[in-house]
Amino acid sequence: MPRNQQILLDNRPQGEATVGNFRLVTTDTPALQDGQVLVRHHYLSLDPYMRGRMNDSKSYAASQPLGEVMIGGTVGEVVESRHPVYAVGDKVVGMGGWQEYSVADGNTPGMLRKVDTTHVPLSAYLGAVGMPGVTAWYGLVKIIAPKAGETVVVSAASGAVGSAFGALAKARGCRVVGIAGGPDKCRYVTEELGFDACIDHRANGDLKSMARALKEACPDGIDGYFENVGGYILDAVLLRANAFARVAVCGMIAGYDGQPLPLQNPALILINRMKVEGFIVSEHMEVWPEALKELGGLAASGKLRPRETIAQGLAAAPEAFLGLLKGKNFGKQLVKLV
Amino acid sequence: MPRNQQILLDNRPQGEATVGNFRLVTTDTPALQDGQVLVRHHYLSLDPYMRGRMNDSKSYAASQPLGEVMIGGTVGEVVESRHPVYAVGDKVVGMGGWQEYSVADGNTPGMLRKVDTTHVPLSAYLGAVGMPGVTAWYGLVKIIAPKAGETVVVSAASGAVGSAFGALAKARGCRVVGIAGGPDKCRYVTEELGFDACIDHRANGDLKSMARALKEACPDGIDGYFENVGGYILDAVLLRANAFARVAVCGMIAGYDGQPLPLQNPALILINRMKVEGFIVSEHMEVWPEALKELGGLAASGKLRPRETIAQGLAAAPEAFLGLLKGKNFGKQLVKLV
Repeated sequence: MPRNQQILLDNRPQGEATVGNFRLVTTDTPALQDGQVLVRHHYLSLDPYMRGRMNDSKSYAASQPLGEVMIGGTVGEVVESRHPVYAVGDKVVGMGGWQEYSVADGNTPGMLRKVDTTHVPLSAYLGAVGMPGVTAWYGLVKIIAPKAGETVVVSAASGAVGSAFGALAKARGCRVVGIAGGPDKCRYVTEELGFDACIDHRANGDLKSMARALKEACPDGIDGYFENVGGYILDAVLLRANAFARVAVCGMIAGYDGQPLPLQNPALILINRMKVEGFIVSEHMEVWPEALKELGGLAASGKLRPRETIAQGLAAAPEAFLGLLKGKNFGKQLVKLV
Repeated sequence: MPRNQQILLDNRPQGEATVGNFRLVTTDTPALQDGQVLVRHHYLSLDPYMRGRMNDSKSYAASQPLGEVMIGGTVGEVVESRHPVYAVGDKVVGMGGWQEYSVADGNTPGMLRKVDTTHVPLSAYLGAVGMPGVTAWYGLVKIIAPKAGETVVVSAASGAVGSAFGALAKARGCRVVGIAGGPDKCRYVTEELGFDACIDHRANGDLKSMARALKEACPDGIDGYFENVGGYILDAVLLRANAFARVAVCGMIAGYDGQPLPLQNPALILINRMKVEGFIVSEHMEVWPEALKELGGLAASGKLRPRETIAQGLAAAPEAFLGLLKGKNFGKQLVKLV
């Protein structure tokens, strides 16, 4: 019975999250029941949505209970199986949480998914060909629904969602403009991810400057915006939005830590006849097969191979997660557990 | 050749609009060209959108040029015709502007529409069976798209759009809650217009109080909101919105006069997975026939017979319009010109 390191949510953040909110424990993996599968995690995914779960307040998802293993997506390998569909050695993706091993019920639909690593690396199933990729797909295809030639913008462009958004939008003939933090990330977004332009929000830290940068990068205005951030960037986008522009609201990372960030001029939603729509991708499971098929194709053909930032060992997860919230990662943030 | 009184936009408001922004002039009606029709206006419609046209700033519609007749919907009677479709005595609705007579080109599609006053009074074609009614219809049917049993809320509920919204939503089996200014209007909204409840925003003048009143009036939460006002009422609605709630943004009257009114917590759009969509009904001419048919039926059967506030004579239009912006009217605001 292998020993299993786990990270629990120990207490809730007061304002900014800290490493003190987490606790590392070690337990034994339990004996399997019929129908169960033991998975050894190779990678844990770290994602901004986790910050929302740490709060106790009303949110779109249940808040993470104290004293339990932090929620999180994982990829790994079946090391023991009492389910006929899963064999030892199978590569699987699931929501194993912040731990080295997890026990999954093979009969619960959607709990585990076998994946093929012939053309796509295992870790990609946590990023480009996983939840972040499908998130980008849903916002682009189902909410923004761009026509070829339209201009679409995404914040946090160098991250897992942003990179997938860029590849999907380029495949649809859009002009794609990213927003990212710092010259290195911006260079990566244009040179490696293939965006048409990228705006450094650190060099454009206020509404006026961001609005000017957007005007330059989007000479025909903005038709679609994928919102990962919130705050003054959304205000600036509204100033540059074309009539009938669509905003897919996926994250408001800037507001996770404390007081709400106002939207300065909501009348622009009327003036520009815009649609602003929030979504959470796990409520739209019906699109996953179609989205994963396209994303898998882009990944296999090399058109979507974003960088990864990999922390080593479970104990490094809290620091890596806090870094992610501050934009210290470069591309998809993972924790390697083997 | 009859003499024609006209009201021109003389200068643009600095902040709040005043009677000094308008100028009354008298001219002769011109001689008709082939294809033209001379209409004597019986009623001029006053509507909040006109305030936006008075500004010079970017808006969804062209700003009203200085020195020209103010834009506005009119109903009247053909008094001279050089077009085969229109005969003297025909009742017509059009955009004749703030004047006693207008010349219309009978060949321009949508410029004039003959109306039947057998079952529906002429003035209703400026309200319940006109642009305000279709506005309510579009927001309710095309954006909110409620299911029977859902709760929908409308601000400015006693006005022309609000009253039509209420009748249309009741016809779809919704719980309908209005927001209006003062106990008289609220009584009118529930007792005459048939809303299930009405909240007095004067008695609930801040976010906390409005959120509490909404909680009481909407025990199952809010599924749809038709926004005519903006400001703290929208903030309060977001606090009471159910998952997947829809907001149709038709007006932000509270923000017309000056600085933008922020939306305090846009993250609720994400948290509640809401859709917030702005629209202007003149861009959706394809729905007018269907909408007018339903509205005409409701009006003819007596299910939609809102009150009217009628100012007498063109010279009274500016004062009546400014009163409308402050909510002094009761029901549809008209100016009687004959």
